[in-house]
Amino acid sequence: MTQTPPRPPAGPPARRPVPTSADVARLAGVSRATVSYVLNDTSAVRISEPTRRRVREAAEELGYVPHAAARSLRAGRTRIVLLPTAPVPVGPLYGHFLNELQWALRRLGYTVVQYASMGLDGDEAARAWAELRPVAVVTFGAVELTPHGVDVLKRSGARAVITLGPRPVEGAHSVPLDQRGVGGCAGVHLVERGYRRIGVVMPEEAGLELFSGPRLEGVRHAVTGSGADVVALPLACAEEAAGALAARWPGLGLDAVFAYNDEYAMLLMRALLDAGVSVPGDTAVMGADDLLLGRLTRPRLSTVRIDMETGQHLAGLVDRVVRDPDRTPEGGDLMAARAVHREST
Amino acid sequence: MTQTPPRPPAGPPARRPVPTSADVARLAGVSRATVSYVLNDTSAVRISEPTRRRVREAAEELGYVPHAAARSLRAGRTRIVLLPTAPVPVGPLYGHFLNELQWALRRLGYTVVQYASMGLDGDEAARAWAELRPVAVVTFGAVELTPHGVDVLKRSGARAVITLGPRPVEGAHSVPLDQRGVGGCAGVHLVERGYRRIGVVMPEEAGLELFSGPRLEGVRHAVTGSGADVVALPLACAEEAAGALAARWPGLGLDAVFAYNDEYAMLLMRALLDAGVSVPGDTAVMGADDLLLGRLTRPRLSTVRIDMETGQHLAGLVDRVVRDPDRTPEGGDLMAARAVHREST
Repeated sequence: MTQTPPRPPAGPPARRPVPTSADVARLAGVSRATVSYVLNDTSAVRISEPTRRRVREAAEELGYVPHAAARSLRAGRTRIVLLPTAPVPVGPLYGHFLNELQWALRRLGYTVVQYASMGLDGDEAARAWAELRPVAVVTFGAVELTPHGVDVLKRSGARAVITLGPRPVEGAHSVPLDQRGVGGCAGVHLVERGYRRIGVVMPEEAGLELFSGPRLEGVRHAVTGSGADVVALPLACAEEAAGALAARWPGLGLDAVFAYNDEYAMLLMRALLDAGVSVPGDTAVMGADDLLLGRLTRPRLSTVRIDMETGQHLAGLVDRVVRDPDRTPEGGDLMAARAVHREST
Repeated sequence: MTQTPPRPPAGPPARRPVPTSADVARLAGVSRATVSYVLNDTSAVRISEPTRRRVREAAEELGYVPHAAARSLRAGRTRIVLLPTAPVPVGPLYGHFLNELQWALRRLGYTVVQYASMGLDGDEAARAWAELRPVAVVTFGAVELTPHGVDVLKRSGARAVITLGPRPVEGAHSVPLDQRGVGGCAGVHLVERGYRRIGVVMPEEAGLELFSGPRLEGVRHAVTGSGADVVALPLACAEEAAGALAARWPGLGLDAVFAYNDEYAMLLMRALLDAGVSVPGDTAVMGADDLLLGRLTRPRLSTVRIDMETGQHLAGLVDRVVRDPDRTPEGGDLMAARAVHREST
C-alpha cells in the first residue's frame, strides 16, 4: 500500500461566492426542485417551456453549472466511466477507437474521464479509481487488475468492470482483444511463403510486453507442425540497437522476421539494408498496424492489418452491463487481424 | 447550448452495501473522525501508529476507499486537475510530456483526469468540465476557451485555468507554447541555405490548424526581408493526395518545402522522389519533431527539433497558481525549437 500523497493546502477562499442552485431558483422565481429537474433534463416531471427557458437563462446569467459530485451523492452513484490510460504511446488505430468510444459513451449520458495509471500496481490503481466512484471502468491492460482490485471497485459502487485483453480477471467482464491473432497472421503468412527460420522482435520498452508476449505466442502457435523455428529477438527502439542486431544478423541464420509492428520493422529493415542484407532476398521483414509510413519504404513493408470493432459497439456493451451487471456480455473478439502482402516478404 | 444527454437509468441497487467510513470506525473501534484523519493522512492530528494501522487494516478488510466527491463537498473543493484531451493524435514528444506532468501532479497530491472534449465548443466544454469541479484546468488548445468559459470555471471553484498556446485568453493564466518558433526555425534554416521559393504544407485534417497556422506565420515572419516567397500547400495525409501534389510540383516552381512535421515530410518526399523530383537537388524537404523514422529515410530528413520543459516544471506552476491564483506565473516559453540539418535540405 502506498502512502496517500500530501494534500495541497486549502488556501484562501475563492474571491466570489460559487453560485448555487438556490441562487438560480431565486433569480428564476421557481423552486430548487424545479431548477434540478430542468438542468438535469428530467422528462418525468412536466415543466412548461417558458419556465425551462427562465431557469436556463438564470443559470447562464449566474454562471451556474450542476455539481457532478453533489448530484452523484444524491443519486448514490456517479455517471462516470473511467478509462485508465497507459504510459505507452497509442497508435492511430487505438486513438481513433478511443475517440469513438468516448463520444458514444457521452451520447449515452456518461461522463468519460481518463485516468493516468502509470506506476501503480493493480490494487493501488483500483483504490485510486474507486475514489472517483465510477459506475464503470474499462481497462485496456494499462494495469494488471487483480480479483481483489475488481472487488474494491465493485464495493465502491462500480456496476461494470470490463477488461479488454487476452487474460480474463475473476469478477470482471472480460472482452477478448487478442494480440495472439496478430502474431498468428504473421506466422501463417511467413510459413506459407516458405520461410522456416523466423525471428520475432520483442521491444525492450516497458509496457509493451502486454502486447509483444501474446504476439510471440501467436507466431509460435501458428507455425507449429510446419517445421519452422521461432527465435525471440529483444530490440530497443533506437538506431544503434538496430545496427548492432543487423551486424550479427548473418550469424543468426534467419530467413524472416516479424518485427512486432511497422515502426520496429522500418527501423530493422533500414539497419539490415545498410548492413548489406537484402530484403526480402536474404531476409523477409514483416510489421503490423498497416501504418501509412510503412507503405512509403522501398521495398514496401508487408504488415498485419488490424481492424477493430467500432467504439460505438463497446459503448453499447458498457451501457448494457451497467444496466444489468449480471448478464454476460455477448459478442466476440473486438479485433480482427489479416496479413497484407507487399514487397518485403 | 447543447441539450443535456439522457441519464442512464438508476437500475437495481448494488447487491452488497457499499462500505462506509462508519463501518471502518466500528471495526477498528475508533471514531469516524479518526478514520478520516488516518485515511486522508492528516498530519495535523496526532494519532498513534498502532491506531493508524488498525484503521488501515479495517479499511482494507472491508474494501473501503474514501469517496473523492464526498471529501470534496466537505472541503469545498476537489483536488482534481482536469486536462482536456484533443482528438488529434499525440506524438511521442507530447505523450512523454503529458506522462511527466500527470506523474508530477499526482506526487503533489492532485487527482489528474483527462477529459475528452472533441466536438464541444469552448463554452460547452467549460460547462462540462465545471461539473467535475476541478481545482485546476490545464488546456493545450484542444478547445478554444473563451473569457466566458474561464469565468464559468472560476465561478465553479477552479483556482487555476491555464492555457498553453500561442493565444492568451482573458481571465486565464497563459503559458506560451509557441508553434511560431517551429516555423521560424525552418524558415531561417531554408533561407540560410539559399532557398527562395518555399512551400509550407498545411494539413487538411481537422484540429491541426491550431499548430499549422502559427507554424506558417513563423515561416513567413522568419523569411521577411530575405526576398523569399512563401506558398501555403494544403495536403491530406494520404498517398494519393501526396502523389497529386507531386505531379503538379514542377509547375509550382518551389525550391524548398517545410512539410509541417516529419510524417508529412516523409509522405511528400516519397511522392516527390517517385515523381522524379530529386531531393534536395530540385527541392529541399524539411520536417519537424525529429522522429526516429525521419532518420531512416534516404536522403535523411532535415527537421526542427522541439525540446519541451519537463512536466515537473509545469506541475509546479499549476500548484503555485492553485495556492495563489492572483500571482502571475513566471517562466518563459515551455518549448524551444532548433533546426537539425541532415541530407534533405
